Amino acid sequence: MKFRRSERLIDMTSYLLDHPRHLVPLTFFAERYSSAKSSISEDLAIVKETFEQRGIGTLQTVAGAAGGVKFFVNVSDEEARPFVNELCSLIAHPDRLLPGGYLYLTDILGNPTIVQKAGRIIASAYVNTKIDVVMTVATKGIPLAYAVASQLNTPVVIVRRDSKVTEGPTVSINYVSGSAKRIQTMVLSKRSMPEGSRVLIVDDFMKAGGTVMGMISLLEEFNGTVAGIAVLVEAEKIEERLVDEYKSLVKLTDVNVKEKTIQVAEGNYFKRRTEE
Amino acid sequence: MKFRRSERLIDMTSYLLDHPRHLVPLTFFAERYSSAKSSISEDLAIVKETFEQRGIGTLQTVAGAAGGVKFFVNVSDEEARPFVNELCSLIAHPDRLLPGGYLYLTDILGNPTIVQKAGRIIASAYVNTKIDVVMTVATKGIPLAYAVASQLNTPVVIVRRDSKVTEGPTVSINYVSGSAKRIQTMVLSKRSMPEGSRVLIVDDFMKAGGTVMGMISLLEEFNGTVAGIAVLVEAEKIEERLVDEYKSLVKLTDVNVKEKTIQVAEGNYFKRRTEE
Repeated sequence: MKFRRSERLIDMTSYLLDHPRHLVPLTFFAERYSSAKSSISEDLAIVKETFEQRGIGTLQTVAGAAGGVKFFVNVSDEEARPFVNELCSLIAHPDRLLPGGYLYLTDILGNPTIVQKAGRIIASAYVNTKIDVVMTVATKGIPLAYAVASQLNTPVVIVRRDSKVTEGPTVSINYVSGSAKRIQTMVLSKRSMPEGSRVLIVDDFMKAGGTVMGMISLLEEFNGTVAGIAVLVEAEKIEERLVDEYKSLVKLTDVNVKEKTIQVAEGNYFKRRTEE
Repeated sequence: MKFRRSERLIDMTSYLLDHPRHLVPLTFFAERYSSAKSSISEDLAIVKETFEQRGIGTLQTVAGAAGGVKFFVNVSDEEARPFVNELCSLIAHPDRLLPGGYLYLTDILGNPTIVQKAGRIIASAYVNTKIDVVMTVATKGIPLAYAVASQLNTPVVIVRRDSKVTEGPTVSINYVSGSAKRIQTMVLSKRSMPEGSRVLIVDDFMKAGGTVMGMISLLEEFNGTVAGIAVLVEAEKIEERLVDEYKSLVKLTDVNVKEKTIQVAEGNYFKRRTEE
């Protein structure tokens, strides 16, 4: 059965979006659509052009016998900015204030549409970085970590506060939480991360950075290296942050419990991109 | 700027796959591509046909002024079966056996490609069911719950073992775990689920079903009703299962700790679909 170009373009788009950063041989598509490789190449050129124009991402062609095509997500700033601004106004709502100046973000983190878009934006900043695993800590960071990892085609490794029998042997460390200055424990299944991995740390929220520092100590036990740190929201006015190299989408600039006001601004995500 | 049909088809495919179960007005596409509604309708007919032929899903057109088009995921059994079989052989590997007959599944649950595909397959069974939220319990079920919810366009609600300050006021219940017969606690943020929601419960693993029963008790505190129960893996030979209406992708038929063998079969997912 032969496929028309329009059908090939639709199915190819669906397949490529589903397999970011996978190398797909041209012969795979040629067989899938019983089409000549030359037609497939033409199709891919059209897909690439449209993906780039619409701020979806790009295709990279790898030449040679072991070659093929790879889709990379690349959300343009024109696409990302309105989304981040919307996120800011969502977060600025005074109803979110909890006792102690904490913010209720569960509804935002529970919205798969928001989380996936945020994940795609964060992943766009790391498509050219070699990353072997995305690491996060249970519980709130998990959805965002998956959203990022699915675009980078890497596994997710989840650090826990306590060990579980279903995790097998674990490695654990103690760390000092940055804001509360308490000693806490983090645990990671030994099997879950290969030695020497390049790790992207993803979390929902960063205050002083103690949790991130804990994850760094833990990954060092696996001889890993930090390939990047990204958070959805960073907290306001931290006098001494433990971590200085990170990307954030949103920044709390002022949380006033007494006045019940929350000031929110864009995080450093866009700034860093412009500087690059 | 005018768009060629090929560009429209590619961008439309990407947009619809990103917005499952959202009603997209035809005028949205007409404006996006500066095209006549009649061309958009023709485009959508091509997309629909291809989605159905390739086992991706379907489009439903809602007529009238408030009308538009909705994408529904619908992984065909021809697509789902080889995936589930592959999952079975992955799970059957004797290296997974942990002390006490537990299975190490962290690597499978940590693979976004697997989790998303499983989520899409599970969601396919519920596209015609009215579902307001997907509920799961921390930690392991979270990624699968998001994968399902993103296809059903619903929020995810995460039940926890303990309450956190960032969750605000919570409702908690006690329940008896099915296999260990211990009394345990479950907690859900009051704000996180509207009263009277129709709830799809998603988890990674079900043994006797105590955890699922706990979630049912908890959602009843919110006057919710169970719209469905789906798990990735169900355990072998449970003499008295507490839950009888559920779907599973994979079933452990025999775990022999002494012989170090794991027997795995397809879950009841396909059986139920055929009976429908």
